[in-house]
Amino acid sequence: MRQRLESLVRLALEEDVGFGDVTTAATVPGEATGRALIVARGPLVLSGLEAALETFRAVDPGLSARAMATDGDRLEAGQTAVELAGRARSILTAERVALNFLGHLSGVATLTGRFVEASRLPGGGGPRILDTRKTTPGLRALEKAAVRHGGGHNHRFSLQDGLLIKDNHIMAAGSVALALERARRDGPQGLRIEIEVDRLDQLPEALGNGADIVLLDNMGPGALAEAMAIIGHFYAPGPRRTLAEASGGVNLDNIASIAATGVDLISVGALTHSAPAADLGLDWL
Amino acid sequence: MRQRLESLVRLALEEDVGFGDVTTAATVPGEATGRALIVARGPLVLSGLEAALETFRAVDPGLSARAMATDGDRLEAGQTAVELAGRARSILTAERVALNFLGHLSGVATLTGRFVEASRLPGGGGPRILDTRKTTPGLRALEKAAVRHGGGHNHRFSLQDGLLIKDNHIMAAGSVALALERARRDGPQGLRIEIEVDRLDQLPEALGNGADIVLLDNMGPGALAEAMAIIGHFYAPGPRRTLAEASGGVNLDNIASIAATGVDLISVGALTHSAPAADLGLDWL
Amino acid sequence: MRQRLESLVRLALEEDVGFGDVTTAATVPGEATGRALIVARGPLVLSGLEAALETFRAVDPGLSARAMATDGDRLEAGQTAVELAGRARSILTAERVALNFLGHLSGVATLTGRFVEASRLPGGGGPRILDTRKTTPGLRALEKAAVRHGGGHNHRFSLQDGLLIKDNHIMAAGSVALALERARRDGPQGLRIEIEVDRLDQLPEALGNGADIVLLDNMGPGALAEAMAIIGHFYAPGPRRTLAEASGGVNLDNIASIAATGVDLISVGALTHSAPAADLGLDWL
Amino acid sequence: MRQRLESLVRLALEEDVGFGDVTTAATVPGEATGRALIVARGPLVLSGLEAALETFRAVDPGLSARAMATDGDRLEAGQTAVELAGRARSILTAERVALNFLGHLSGVATLTGRFVEASRLPGGGGPRILDTRKTTPGLRALEKAAVRHGGGHNHRFSLQDGLLIKDNHIMAAGSVALALERARRDGPQGLRIEIEVDRLDQLPEALGNGADIVLLDNMGPGALAEAMAIIGHFYAPGPRRTLAEASGGVNLDNIASIAATGVDLISVGALTHSAPAADLGLDWL
Amino acid sequence: MRQRLESLVRLALEEDVGFGDVTTAATVPGEATGRALIVARGPLVLSGLEAALETFRAVDPGLSARAMATDGDRLEAGQTAVELAGRARSILTAERVALNFLGHLSGVATLTGRFVEASRLPGGGGPRILDTRKTTPGLRALEKAAVRHGGGHNHRFSLQDGLLIKDNHIMAAGSVALALERARRDGPQGLRIEIEVDRLDQLPEALGNGADIVLLDNMGPGALAEAMAIIGHFYAPGPRRTLAEASGGVNLDNIASIAATGVDLISVGALTHSAPAADLGLDWL
Amino acid sequence: MRQRLESLVRLALEEDVGFGDVTTAATVPGEATGRALIVARGPLVLSGLEAALETFRAVDPGLSARAMATDGDRLEAGQTAVELAGRARSILTAERVALNFLGHLSGVATLTGRFVEASRLPGGGGPRILDTRKTTPGLRALEKAAVRHGGGHNHRFSLQDGLLIKDNHIMAAGSVALALERARRDGPQGLRIEIEVDRLDQLPEALGNGADIVLLDNMGPGALAEAMAIIGHFYAPGPRRTLAEASGGVNLDNIASIAATGVDLISVGALTHSAPAADLGLDWL
Repeated sequence: MRQRLESLVRLALEEDVGFGDVTTAATVPGEATGRALIVARGPLVLSGLEAALETFRAVDPGLSARAMATDGDRLEAGQTAVELAGRARSILTAERVALNFLGHLSGVATLTGRFVEASRLPGGGGPRILDTRKTTPGLRALEKAAVRHGGGHNHRFSLQDGLLIKDNHIMAAGSVALALERARRDGPQGLRIEIEVDRLDQLPEALGNGADIVLLDNMGPGALAEAMAIIGHFYAPGPRRTLAEASGGVNLDNIASIAATGVDLISVGALTHSAPAADLGLDWL
Repeated sequence: MRQRLESLVRLALEEDVGFGDVTTAATVPGEATGRALIVARGPLVLSGLEAALETFRAVDPGLSARAMATDGDRLEAGQTAVELAGRARSILTAERVALNFLGHLSGVATLTGRFVEASRLPGGGGPRILDTRKTTPGLRALEKAAVRHGGGHNHRFSLQDGLLIKDNHIMAAGSVALALERARRDGPQGLRIEIEVDRLDQLPEALGNGADIVLLDNMGPGALAEAMAIIGHFYAPGPRRTLAEASGGVNLDNIASIAATGVDLISVGALTHSAPAADLGLDWL
Repeated sequence: MRQRLESLVRLALEEDVGFGDVTTAATVPGEATGRALIVARGPLVLSGLEAALETFRAVDPGLSARAMATDGDRLEAGQTAVELAGRARSILTAERVALNFLGHLSGVATLTGRFVEASRLPGGGGPRILDTRKTTPGLRALEKAAVRHGGGHNHRFSLQDGLLIKDNHIMAAGSVALALERARRDGPQGLRIEIEVDRLDQLPEALGNGADIVLLDNMGPGALAEAMAIIGHFYAPGPRRTLAEASGGVNLDNIASIAATGVDLISVGALTHSAPAADLGLDWL
Repeated sequence: MRQRLESLVRLALEEDVGFGDVTTAATVPGEATGRALIVARGPLVLSGLEAALETFRAVDPGLSARAMATDGDRLEAGQTAVELAGRARSILTAERVALNFLGHLSGVATLTGRFVEASRLPGGGGPRILDTRKTTPGLRALEKAAVRHGGGHNHRFSLQDGLLIKDNHIMAAGSVALALERARRDGPQGLRIEIEVDRLDQLPEALGNGADIVLLDNMGPGALAEAMAIIGHFYAPGPRRTLAEASGGVNLDNIASIAATGVDLISVGALTHSAPAADLGLDWL
Repeated sequence: MRQRLESLVRLALEEDVGFGDVTTAATVPGEATGRALIVARGPLVLSGLEAALETFRAVDPGLSARAMATDGDRLEAGQTAVELAGRARSILTAERVALNFLGHLSGVATLTGRFVEASRLPGGGGPRILDTRKTTPGLRALEKAAVRHGGGHNHRFSLQDGLLIKDNHIMAAGSVALALERARRDGPQGLRIEIEVDRLDQLPEALGNGADIVLLDNMGPGALAEAMAIIGHFYAPGPRRTLAEASGGVNLDNIASIAATGVDLISVGALTHSAPAADLGLDWL
Repeated sequence: MRQRLESLVRLALEEDVGFGDVTTAATVPGEATGRALIVARGPLVLSGLEAALETFRAVDPGLSARAMATDGDRLEAGQTAVELAGRARSILTAERVALNFLGHLSGVATLTGRFVEASRLPGGGGPRILDTRKTTPGLRALEKAAVRHGGGHNHRFSLQDGLLIKDNHIMAAGSVALALERARRDGPQGLRIEIEVDRLDQLPEALGNGADIVLLDNMGPGALAEAMAIIGHFYAPGPRRTLAEASGGVNLDNIASIAATGVDLISVGALTHSAPAADLGLDWL
């Protein structure tokens, strides 16, 4: 939502600007104007434009800040993301916060893009690459959008919109079957039921009791292939077949072999918790 | 400030919990209790304890959440950071947000520790490792604390508390000398004046006009050593000597050679914008 | 979440108390104490205890406010919901806001209870009674909890946690089949796909393209029964059968005949948008 | 105040939209535009236009949202309240919150209109119909405006702007006379003093000690008529005569006989706590 | 309300502490504790205790902060207002904000006390001294409490709780009589009607049309005495007599002669907009 | 920052307007428009324009509010600060809050102007007049701007942006030398180090250990002159010489003799904590 973005930009400006940019106030005349570009310093997938534009608007509604690309675009070094014109003081004061948003979010999108590419199957197609709830506090909506810009898909946004039964829930409920029954009885009607499966012998119980998605946690390619075979025995392919999600220890080196097992979904925490910042900078014209 | 931390934790819970943890509500009985540990899964420098404890408190004031280590401690895989006891539902609901804080901030502290270590001089001592304003929006106070936990020092917190004259300020003011004069005349009395020097021939003008700190941007070890010699001619060593700060393109491979030039300060943006998350997890007892 | 409740209570006190309770300040001595009960004035299903208790706490942390019943309890006229003791001024100042919460939310729970009862099938069992998004602005979480206290179930909390394809979405997508395909491709993995069906001839297309739930809008008992027969031809009963939800024009007079058609779910907007307040009052001891 | 309205709309959108409208995002193209009307589905007195328009503005400042009627207008089924044009996604996302405001507030205005009508005296004129503080938490300003739109008048907005001495205040002060004296001495100068009278024998003491308004609680038409006679003996009619307010158990069946007693004011809690929602819907053009 | 106070204290700490008290962090050991007193440095009427105590609590809930006097007490130089014990860092960090509250509010109370004293009639009694809406933005509730602590009374808190018809309202309505009629017809029932009278010839029209209070603006003692005589002809003394309020240009030199005219109320803007700070300081034990 | 100003204006309107301006609503027709001027009623230095304009904008974005002067201008009685045109109701509702901002802040600027003037040396030049942290809670940014408008300079904004070692910090650290060493080692790099000196014999230790600024607290002109001589022995004049700041008990009578001692800076708490309001009023055209 637009309002959440405005709050976040305000919070970021509050912490970066405080009572004011004392250097700029002392050295740059109030009436000076200028033009500047935000430029990629290396190849990246762009994300964070809305936050960057809102930052300039929030500092000075009189600034002109125009996007020269779209979130999701692949930029090469030297390509322009944003064009700015207006009071020089305002551009200097807003610059760092805007770059912090773009750098972090483009970092997430760029890393996602690399995972998506690495998971494509030789003959085309491949599993969906999903994010997780391992996001930076306060930035979830923006990071999840960055994952989409990089070609990934979103797992649940919050605990409210996903029924994901993990080992501790199973233990508390008593068994896989009981946990699935309770989730179906007391959970919201509109949510699919996903259940974590740590060992292959739990899989038939999950499938037999109506799991919509099974989360195959920390299994190697061999076990995953076996799991896919078991699932294939339960449901014919079709829109309502049980889906399989692989997770745990996925990296750029092993994702191709995981994808080759035929799983439908692969979730990767690193997309949001360990993406290095993309490099963008501001050049005055 | 405590209140900012509470706001941030609240924001993080708001985005992760929303209307409620529907899985836990459906599968875990309201009266069930349990004990659990938050444990390092690999070696790390710990940071973020306050945020993690506040997260558990905010979800359920009845939970007992005790720190078993201190921010700044080096933990090995298997060592415990936090001990928890209380309603199982509350622990499950708060777990992810608490781990997100600990993972991100310990990641910053751990990376800082590596940079600090790599910058020690053979005979002991070495420059201070500083952070920058390239922080994650909303998390500046926590990330700057994490840098301290890792053995680094903080550069300015915001535009309010540092007079740092960069190339664009110099251009707007007309010259290095004019920019320094304006900063001294109109800037806050309590701030030192730091000025960016991109070429060695600008250095004498900066020193001769009373710069307190010179920022030597994107210079190699050779140029930095030369700069230190020039500074040595201007001021005798002593508490009020002009300080030299190196910045730009610093990494774990080249920091030792930069430190060897004798610069007082090295600032590293990657500490806060590109630290991979540290790995911590929750184990039930 | 606890924090949302605190914000809402604070907002309610802000609008009711403003700069202070001038009548009580003028007529009741600051040191006077008292005891009082909040009592049902007629039969009702109780809801809103947490908000009421938080109201007294927020006005005066020194007050003792104890619940004498549980949300979801059926109270008869004269039965006590809350027992209060402490400064008389504080009780008088908080009274109205606390009663406004209890009256409104118990009203929702009580009306839900009547719908649930009216929908029971002669031989036991019956469909689930669901709420809608037609809630009072700002009170959704509390009203949805009140529906549960009355024996109902919750439909989606927000636009984030339900894929509910209505007529306009179908029109925009081009057809039932295309809308379902897009929702499956681009929608979150964890959500079931529900689609609105206004005419029976749309039903096979919905079922054949993998709808998890069909929303049968504004159909009479005859048409609903026919719809259930069509669904029965598609999927054998079981945990992953397509569910049928009836909605539109449901009231206490016609709900029994709707339930008799065998639909799985009946959603009723009136539960939250037209429930008259339950009658509770405060008696001093 | 405009700002309070914006906060409330934002809160309502926050709870309804969350991370985003996933159905619309999946099925409606981002560039699709449309026109739609918000239309009365039955006869009603309109209220809530400002909140509805602000909702569309808040979701998308690019939407055109025009009021086709005025708060306080009586609409028949089929008449248009609001005309919308712009991005289809934005209209779909904002629709429910806007309708929730209009439905609830028009419900209050419509019910008020019925009470006002029922209280008109045969020869014209009649008492004023007042609301109470029994409002929905968070919505007081809007509900009190809706009462005015329905032809009613507002009682005090909050505890700050009315001196209303109830039985407990009298008990705490010691007597009717003492309570009135204290209110006059310590209460704000600008407020009239109203005092609750449960029995007719308290009335002379209230009138003799300067009550500006007497609240006649839970009296039938006979007792009310007697009370009016007693008041008539004390003060000649004129702008500063003591006013009489009837309250308690007023409904559409008995209000005419209460009005006939000549009381000046009748307050009705049901206006705000038990009004069923008015029926409005959105039609696409 | 307690919550407003907490917000204000938080705002004040936010602006004074920011990212932290860097001097104290560098020079005072974290484990050092101490005891200190807040002491009057000259004679004053105390006000602001609650805000001061809340400031220490907000910085460190572990501090002990005890009031040694009560708001409204007259302190001589050297007398103690607050006793503190706990972490030295916390006391040092909170000190300035707490003193700012106490100094400003005690300044208002002290100045009010001087006006009240100067307005006492030789034989005892005298008019009430009222504040105005000329308060410092954000501090109204606290400043109005300070006026009470100094022995004054409060005029209306806000535009919501007073009907005060000024010259521009009269002009807009057409005449004194019309303005009074409209206020009586459309204004809230619970508010008295006060009207500003700039010339004596307007007074009979105001009294004859039911004004509850007349505001005699910028009149000298002679005109005020004449006004009181006119009022005396209209209403016999008694609880519901029209009250007379003098305002405009009141100072410590002329207030005695104004009081001698017999006016009921004197309002003084300077109480809140021009009170010099009272002098209090913190002494370590 | 613009956002802080908007929050403060909103807070001020919230407390002054509440549920609405009931007098204006009753007496002034909704469609009436008018023009008005905000005019100085006596000589003053103007400050607060931005807050005043924002107040009118916040109440009614349709109002035209134009500044006819600039913050820092000296106005004589009768000169216009702001010109207003638009809905009469809106102007009346916003008037008091706008005047409260202008009166308070112009009061600060006007008093500052008098101190600055009184501190000019006979031959021209003179020390800088500084404010302190003794500001009104919530108004620091605006009051510090008002000091600049009056010709003064700002001391630190908050505890974050100044290293000011006071007697208690010295005591805690052990000695002047140790306190300075710790501040240099652990304090932020970008801040000068100021240390309070209560007795002249502490001065050499402060100078010898690298203090950037010495705060000479509560010294008479004789002691100050002596201090300046001591400082003169340590450092040659130049941009990086240690600065001397006088503080404590400074008033309009003694500031000239303090300035004559040659101190660089004089800080005056009264600028912000004891400035009487400047007199401005609104005149309708």
